[in-house]
Amino acid sequence: MTQHLISGGQSITAPDNLKPLLQDILQQALGVTRGKVADYIPALAEVKPDYCALTVATLDGSVTSVGDATTPFSIQSISKIFGLMLAMERLDEKLWQRVQMEPSGQPFNSIVQLEWEKGIPRNPMINAGAILVSDVLVSHYSASKSAVLSMVRGLCASDSVCVDRRVHQSEIEHGARNAALAYLMKSFGNLEADVDEVLDHYFWQCALTMSTEDLARALAFLANRGTCPYSGKAITSHRDAQRINALLSTSGMYDQSGQFAFTVGLPAKSGVGGGIVAIVPDYGVIAAWAPPLNSYGNSARGMEMIRNLANRLGLSVY
Amino acid sequence: MTQHLISGGQSITAPDNLKPLLQDILQQALGVTRGKVADYIPALAEVKPDYCALTVATLDGSVTSVGDATTPFSIQSISKIFGLMLAMERLDEKLWQRVQMEPSGQPFNSIVQLEWEKGIPRNPMINAGAILVSDVLVSHYSASKSAVLSMVRGLCASDSVCVDRRVHQSEIEHGARNAALAYLMKSFGNLEADVDEVLDHYFWQCALTMSTEDLARALAFLANRGTCPYSGKAITSHRDAQRINALLSTSGMYDQSGQFAFTVGLPAKSGVGGGIVAIVPDYGVIAAWAPPLNSYGNSARGMEMIRNLANRLGLSVY
Amino acid sequence: MTQHLISGGQSITAPDNLKPLLQDILQQALGVTRGKVADYIPALAEVKPDYCALTVATLDGSVTSVGDATTPFSIQSISKIFGLMLAMERLDEKLWQRVQMEPSGQPFNSIVQLEWEKGIPRNPMINAGAILVSDVLVSHYSASKSAVLSMVRGLCASDSVCVDRRVHQSEIEHGARNAALAYLMKSFGNLEADVDEVLDHYFWQCALTMSTEDLARALAFLANRGTCPYSGKAITSHRDAQRINALLSTSGMYDQSGQFAFTVGLPAKSGVGGGIVAIVPDYGVIAAWAPPLNSYGNSARGMEMIRNLANRLGLSVY
Amino acid sequence: MTQHLISGGQSITAPDNLKPLLQDILQQALGVTRGKVADYIPALAEVKPDYCALTVATLDGSVTSVGDATTPFSIQSISKIFGLMLAMERLDEKLWQRVQMEPSGQPFNSIVQLEWEKGIPRNPMINAGAILVSDVLVSHYSASKSAVLSMVRGLCASDSVCVDRRVHQSEIEHGARNAALAYLMKSFGNLEADVDEVLDHYFWQCALTMSTEDLARALAFLANRGTCPYSGKAITSHRDAQRINALLSTSGMYDQSGQFAFTVGLPAKSGVGGGIVAIVPDYGVIAAWAPPLNSYGNSARGMEMIRNLANRLGLSVY
Repeated sequence: MTQHLISGGQSITAPDNLKPLLQDILQQALGVTRGKVADYIPALAEVKPDYCALTVATLDGSVTSVGDATTPFSIQSISKIFGLMLAMERLDEKLWQRVQMEPSGQPFNSIVQLEWEKGIPRNPMINAGAILVSDVLVSHYSASKSAVLSMVRGLCASDSVCVDRRVHQSEIEHGARNAALAYLMKSFGNLEADVDEVLDHYFWQCALTMSTEDLARALAFLANRGTCPYSGKAITSHRDAQRINALLSTSGMYDQSGQFAFTVGLPAKSGVGGGIVAIVPDYGVIAAWAPPLNSYGNSARGMEMIRNLANRLGLSVY
Repeated sequence: MTQHLISGGQSITAPDNLKPLLQDILQQALGVTRGKVADYIPALAEVKPDYCALTVATLDGSVTSVGDATTPFSIQSISKIFGLMLAMERLDEKLWQRVQMEPSGQPFNSIVQLEWEKGIPRNPMINAGAILVSDVLVSHYSASKSAVLSMVRGLCASDSVCVDRRVHQSEIEHGARNAALAYLMKSFGNLEADVDEVLDHYFWQCALTMSTEDLARALAFLANRGTCPYSGKAITSHRDAQRINALLSTSGMYDQSGQFAFTVGLPAKSGVGGGIVAIVPDYGVIAAWAPPLNSYGNSARGMEMIRNLANRLGLSVY
Repeated sequence: MTQHLISGGQSITAPDNLKPLLQDILQQALGVTRGKVADYIPALAEVKPDYCALTVATLDGSVTSVGDATTPFSIQSISKIFGLMLAMERLDEKLWQRVQMEPSGQPFNSIVQLEWEKGIPRNPMINAGAILVSDVLVSHYSASKSAVLSMVRGLCASDSVCVDRRVHQSEIEHGARNAALAYLMKSFGNLEADVDEVLDHYFWQCALTMSTEDLARALAFLANRGTCPYSGKAITSHRDAQRINALLSTSGMYDQSGQFAFTVGLPAKSGVGGGIVAIVPDYGVIAAWAPPLNSYGNSARGMEMIRNLANRLGLSVY
Repeated sequence: MTQHLISGGQSITAPDNLKPLLQDILQQALGVTRGKVADYIPALAEVKPDYCALTVATLDGSVTSVGDATTPFSIQSISKIFGLMLAMERLDEKLWQRVQMEPSGQPFNSIVQLEWEKGIPRNPMINAGAILVSDVLVSHYSASKSAVLSMVRGLCASDSVCVDRRVHQSEIEHGARNAALAYLMKSFGNLEADVDEVLDHYFWQCALTMSTEDLARALAFLANRGTCPYSGKAITSHRDAQRINALLSTSGMYDQSGQFAFTVGLPAKSGVGGGIVAIVPDYGVIAAWAPPLNSYGNSARGMEMIRNLANRLGLSVY
């Protein structure tokens, strides 16, 4: 396959060659049958388990996809990146007095850690941290939902990004644990706005629907030193793009973050809707989607597709 | 300053220009007075707090240093890298059934986590993990200490690497907590060899003494895809070099690993002797030494020197 | 002092002799200046710290008091006994599938334990357990507040038992941690009713106001094998009175329960309003009140008065 | 059945009537097949599961038994009472600066709690606490084992009390977890003597062998205000007998202490050898033995026999 070296070992595979590679990887992934579609809310439990999509957006502007790459799905925790961007913009350094930037190392037990650390979440990628970020948005934006939606639509240059109202409603109804996290932060004085309003924003944000093509385009600036490769607009500073990538590297893949760094070596974020995005600095973004989750809550096929692609193209940052 | 672009934004600053930069950074760091020399054993408590060294070894073979860069010091936890290399070589994938690869997220409380996770340490960079690795070495090498020492001497092409017998003895005498970790792993059936022998190897390894120049040279292969840039010898596979760098990124800087990734963005490992090494893939190694530690057990000046240098040269992997 | 032996070493001191003894003990307690009035809500913080009362109600029907023994105060956690009585009546053995009967051993951290034990509170005397009990009451009584109020008024044959509306309101406003506990139980499926309604009952119950004379009379049945010594009415079975006393013995004095058993040896319950009741089986009830709390949240003077009295009269159950 | 009332509801059943009652209770207990003989060391795993014994020693000097009541067995944790008695004698109040008196509430996780509470064990009835007590004995008695043995032999007026050398040796070989507890206390500065010597005393003490008749007689002083009812000798003060009973009430039955208080209502201590002793103040001692353990490590049949007997005779202290 033809490769154009651009930097320390990384290369841009021409779209003509990339497509069959992605096709091959997707086919292999379909053989991976481990996993179970998220079922904590009915709206997610009903998603067909055999959806599968893989998209690569490179910095030269090309977007190569295979599978259901234009089908929107619930991005869930991937939305934590968008919330964080807006909160960093508003609070800057002050944000880090209210949320830490350390990996949590606490599988399933985040309320325990939140208690030990007196209501200061470990990082913005765990639920408590993203609820804290939602509190910042609700407190600092007159219309926090519009702010997120218009930013995301702008990033992927697509008005098709929506919110699934049924998922939103369902999250609220099954959100007792997140309410517990929010009230615990409130009890420590680390939540400013009304708890119901904060949770409403948080659940709304989790219910955003995007396709892998939407996601890959929307996050391309993280691979491009903060600048959107399509519009040329500076979305964040180079420094902040690196910082977000650092957070994704240490905390983006739930309790498999260390294993993902070890086996893949890319900043990444997953959601229980089955989506995963991985950032390849100075190269592009990989977005994958396949609903069945492994025991860590990460898409089993999505992990496998990204690992396979990264290893074949030698894309680790390390 | 003259820079030679070698890869995605990284560059090699010619030694003539690097030296004054390092000198400037070291001077600035001397102004950082935070921190306290490790005092849990007398042999470390007596080290002069004003030692300060900074070395950069680049892949073209040049080694640039300022300060006390040839003075050997107790490398302590940096030695965990050397132990891990030998254990990976012997056990390969089986090693990861006995130790995980996830960040621990447990400040000061590692025995709690070890109990929860039934004697399987979180990663090889925390004490429990390195004691487990020592068990592997003691069990699989006829002379585990010689194996480590000859490997390290070979890596930095220097016979001056030694073990400080007083530190070794002192560690044993004050090693009750590490003994507790070892016995807890033993109680879970995750320690094969005799506990005393395992601890003796572990404490011995922590007592290795090297200079920043020794360290930078010894670990250059991690920046060079597994191959020693001086001898051209393959030390590890490219894959294993990336894996070790990934572990350092998520777990190398104690409970500041997330913050170090966020502010510096390089795989790194520190020791309570005041040393820190940072790996810059496809560029080289930075090694710093200054005994006073911050509250996380990382060298305050060492952190500052590496952060300053990495930011000035734009060396983040993200 | 004249004593009438009634049982294994216990005795009834005639009121004529008891009064000067109580007076002496109260005077000594006033010298105990340790402690700080509860200040987590304004309504409690404003209570005068020098209130002090001591009442002994013996099974022959006599009630002997010194100090502010007819002044009503916020009984707070002492109300957990009343809620539990009604819940035991309705659910019987089934109650213990939803709440355990073990001492918690978890100072200040009950949300951690609640998470570990999957939403099943350790016992009905900790907040989570009493919220669970409130859920039972709200779910099984058409008017749970009336049910509690009429029972308590009947027990002490006094209509003066009221609820302090300001304390009730204040508890709701500062109840974020209790809300977190409730939502966490909800997330584990161990809360049936609406969380807001459950918390409203719980906070209302904590805001009951009674005097030491009210309390001593109301709980006399616990010392009298379940039968009210005044009305002769069976309030609970002998078995259930023993069970409640057992729970108070192992869990009634927060994280000082073991120390209270060791130094006093009586089933007892305290509240952050400064009240403490101690049950002396086959003898009577001691009720004490003094607002300043020690670091465990128990009335410093109240503890001292009960310890002094129990030791002087030899009242330990052990 | 003829009963002689002696105190608040308690009675002495004449031996002629007690024997058939015990026989009936033992027969019923044999129907309880739940449980599994301790198998963490071979010497215990080999004990026949169908041994069963029940002894009642009353303060009038009579000892009534059924089943294998003269067969010696490994008393294991019941020995913690004997160690504690000697440590209280030597250190008095100072002992309680090094060990607490609160229920632990920590099933299976005692090393976690020991870490959180900086090496101060929760109470002398958990392993860490008994190891601490062993440290006191080793440090304050020239021959700690002889001191324990001669005290125990004196208490039950029998030279037949021995130590099972095989159990002692086996405990040492499988004692890694207890070694971890000891080293952790050492690391916090709460262990004075040599760790190996302390553990050797602890394991030796656990290996004491006694019959239910030996145990009932040896602990009769706890039911008799500190005085041996046979010799009339004051073993401890009345106060200290009450204190030990209080500790047994809140912490004697592992993680079933609360449930045992709730369902039985007597101070008691069990051991993984299948023995249980229960103290009935001013009445006597019940000792039971049946090797199969329930999931809490308490003898399933022993619990049932004591519960049945206490309920039939109305022996609760509450």
